[in-house]
Amino acid sequence: MLVKKNDADLYEQYRTKMQKIADLKAAISLLNWDQETCLPPSGAPLRGRQLTTLTALLHGLLTESSLENLLLNLEQATTPAEKEGRNVRITLEEVRRNQKYPEKFVRQLSDTVSACFHGWVAARRKNDFAIWEHLLGEMVCLKQQEARLLGYEKHPYDALLQWHEKAMTTGQLDGLFSQVRHQLSPLLSAILDRSGPAPDWLRCSFPKDRQGKFGRELLATLGFDLDAGRLDVSEHPFTVSMGNQDVRLTTRIEEGDLPGLIFSCLHEGGHGLYEQGLDEADYGLPSGEAISLSIHESQSRLWENMVGRGKSFWLHQFPKLASRFPEILGKVSLQEFYQGINRVGPTLIRTESDELTYHFHVLIRYQIEKGLISGEFRTGDLREIWNQSYRDLLGVKVPDDLRGVLQDVHWSHGSFGYFPTYSLGSFLAAQFFETARREIPGLEASLAAGDCKTLLDWLRRKIHGPGGQYPYPELCLQVTGKHLDPDCFMEYARRKYGELYGGISGLQEKAG
Amino acid sequence: MLVKKNDADLYEQYRTKMQKIADLKAAISLLNWDQETCLPPSGAPLRGRQLTTLTALLHGLLTESSLENLLLNLEQATTPAEKEGRNVRITLEEVRRNQKYPEKFVRQLSDTVSACFHGWVAARRKNDFAIWEHLLGEMVCLKQQEARLLGYEKHPYDALLQWHEKAMTTGQLDGLFSQVRHQLSPLLSAILDRSGPAPDWLRCSFPKDRQGKFGRELLATLGFDLDAGRLDVSEHPFTVSMGNQDVRLTTRIEEGDLPGLIFSCLHEGGHGLYEQGLDEADYGLPSGEAISLSIHESQSRLWENMVGRGKSFWLHQFPKLASRFPEILGKVSLQEFYQGINRVGPTLIRTESDELTYHFHVLIRYQIEKGLISGEFRTGDLREIWNQSYRDLLGVKVPDDLRGVLQDVHWSHGSFGYFPTYSLGSFLAAQFFETARREIPGLEASLAAGDCKTLLDWLRRKIHGPGGQYPYPELCLQVTGKHLDPDCFMEYARRKYGELYGGISGLQEKAG
Repeated sequence: MLVKKNDADLYEQYRTKMQKIADLKAAISLLNWDQETCLPPSGAPLRGRQLTTLTALLHGLLTESSLENLLLNLEQATTPAEKEGRNVRITLEEVRRNQKYPEKFVRQLSDTVSACFHGWVAARRKNDFAIWEHLLGEMVCLKQQEARLLGYEKHPYDALLQWHEKAMTTGQLDGLFSQVRHQLSPLLSAILDRSGPAPDWLRCSFPKDRQGKFGRELLATLGFDLDAGRLDVSEHPFTVSMGNQDVRLTTRIEEGDLPGLIFSCLHEGGHGLYEQGLDEADYGLPSGEAISLSIHESQSRLWENMVGRGKSFWLHQFPKLASRFPEILGKVSLQEFYQGINRVGPTLIRTESDELTYHFHVLIRYQIEKGLISGEFRTGDLREIWNQSYRDLLGVKVPDDLRGVLQDVHWSHGSFGYFPTYSLGSFLAAQFFETARREIPGLEASLAAGDCKTLLDWLRRKIHGPGGQYPYPELCLQVTGKHLDPDCFMEYARRKYGELYGGISGLQEKAG
Repeated sequence: MLVKKNDADLYEQYRTKMQKIADLKAAISLLNWDQETCLPPSGAPLRGRQLTTLTALLHGLLTESSLENLLLNLEQATTPAEKEGRNVRITLEEVRRNQKYPEKFVRQLSDTVSACFHGWVAARRKNDFAIWEHLLGEMVCLKQQEARLLGYEKHPYDALLQWHEKAMTTGQLDGLFSQVRHQLSPLLSAILDRSGPAPDWLRCSFPKDRQGKFGRELLATLGFDLDAGRLDVSEHPFTVSMGNQDVRLTTRIEEGDLPGLIFSCLHEGGHGLYEQGLDEADYGLPSGEAISLSIHESQSRLWENMVGRGKSFWLHQFPKLASRFPEILGKVSLQEFYQGINRVGPTLIRTESDELTYHFHVLIRYQIEKGLISGEFRTGDLREIWNQSYRDLLGVKVPDDLRGVLQDVHWSHGSFGYFPTYSLGSFLAAQFFETARREIPGLEASLAAGDCKTLLDWLRRKIHGPGGQYPYPELCLQVTGKHLDPDCFMEYARRKYGELYGGISGLQEKAG
């Protein structure tokens, strides 16, 4: 492959250009990370214009005709069977997607994202959706325009999905959610019938500094390299990478919510491990970058749920946790702790929900996004639509906007089409973990012995290493030998919760 | 001015281009700020390449022919008597200076700065100049090359001075330092004869968290807007601005060094006040930016020394400080404190030195820089040259590299020509403060009443407001009615220290 000297030279030119583009993307990432962790409040408008300028520069680099010509030549010189050929084709797609955006639109969208984000922060401070509504309305208009610029066959939402998961359509998602909803509902009913009151320790107060310290220990336990990354505190946990040696996670710490710290660290830690596991030598090329948000979420949800809400993991970690908070957890048994972190029940906040009702939270957002983008829903009605959806699907009454329509940051960033990847990622996570259990003899025993490295090595080899070379359907087939199959997640759920809530027998038949 | 519609349009095009350039400069500043405050250690090589890419992009924007053509047209349409005309001419100079650098050199210099900075950090960790020497040697080579690219008439160091103080030459600096050295020496001798032992409180331990809190209070007292800026901790205090609503200062906090916290906050606070006082409406244009490092240092040194080492200021602030550390300062009188922060004597570290011996520290660096750039000195001999200079000029023996040649960050950043601006700035500060005392009746009384706003308003009007419109000689003449005159600093010093060390009479005659 690329045996001809000339082709190899062209490929090096392509690599150099992509590395510069990656540098600029990293600077944009830092401006964003800083905006949510460090930026002085009055600096918001300046930061907005700086982000717009850099975003427009990035768009300029990605749409330079010299890059496209280089890629067209390299497309001729390679085949999709080799890594170089895959990289070239994936970049060509990215270039063509960018070419559909006029620079003016890029700048307008970036300006709107900044205004919309700061408007969301302001609305949250007042707990009033009305403050944010018109800014969200502008954002939705732009997103509709973006869908038209990108083009689509059936649903405008398909166009927006491309940025988050190009291998997925609205039609497929409708089918998937319908199937999962149908299977989850009876399982949930059965569990809720048997669910007791929340244990006392969940309501206790855990000092913030000790929580933060434990969060860092937890990340080190997973194998996250804190010399090549950071953990900070922000209102909304997120992960940002400026290259695999500079991966930054945030968590939130509240005295009354130890699980919030634990599961945000495990979730963001999963994202962070993926980013740190990407191939440094291919920095800037698709093979050195994450493939899609579905695969990204498969990694975060795998560590958060399959590992972090599993009993094996806590066999080793719980005594360490209890020794950090002996005054509270000294009297709690592992089984009580395990049951506490796996309580199932309808709640108001997605990020605090259990791993089953979680998908109803995602479904609500997915349906709202589709409705907003198609024009069926108006932002003026959004609070009522949201609250009604929570009544209908989860049976809970939303008491205010903070615990309702203002809870997620995503729409303020213009991320329409992101939410479904949380569910997709969760289903993939179950399938990956099932495969790992099959392929690694004694995996649960190694987790129970405090060894996360065995699992991480497997993920590095199977999923992190290839980076962005294969879209998720292909990667899923390579890793698991099967197509994406949410039944795998359902089996995992029935097994785990059947065991936890002893009396639930025959659920498999009932729900299957 | 710019009455023709067409000219006004051109000026707006120029403003838009400059604002984009300012955005990119701000992103580079953030990459740098983050590098010294947040960057995970393994991220250093990545950060280096990101800085190089953005620096090369900036160079590209500054040397675009469309910008130069715009400026040439606007030069015809304006005169230097109007703000627009001054802005255009100053930018044209900046463009032409940038045109002298080939892109390759820009990239090489940026890469070398990153390597040299991290090498300096590594050498400090081992307290061994030898680790850094070859990297500094490469840097000096590049700086010599840079001087040739920029061109000069007499001394290659003149070329490098342009980036820090374009209105100054090596010849002028030689004269200035010779004059000041001649006048300072007898004053210093007289003081040292009368200097007693250091007071006990200077050797006490002050808890770090309370120091940090006091530092923030101090900044607020000066009028620094903490909603439009931050204070962080770094090993080497510095100020970075990403626009006047996002100005970031750092300080260093050591338990055994309360003055270190106080005077780094006052020094960086002075820089920060200047940046926050620049005209927001002219963001990106010379009139909205700092003019030069001499003027910048005039602001930092004015707040650090004329205000912050003055008795009036502490009349109001000392009781507040003492109430923060009652167990130590409760028993210390204002006079004892005032004497303690104004102790004069030869020391090893520039940033910890008194305001008189300070200029010997600067002179040593200035002479070394000139020697390195001219090729007279070799980096291999630098440790010895440094240590010998300290013996000769300050009479102290340098015990190790940390307290010697490794103490300053500047050369690792490639900042040759920066140091002289500390002395220039100090002399300007004395002259500005003298003028303020003359023009503001009761200025000392207002400081003694805890009011810094009166002085700040005056500085805003006279110095911050005009931004970069006038080079320092012109600004100095406008503000003080006189040319730069270090005698003003000497008079200030004789008055202050004559009073402090009661017996020093007739010094003015002796030294004059």
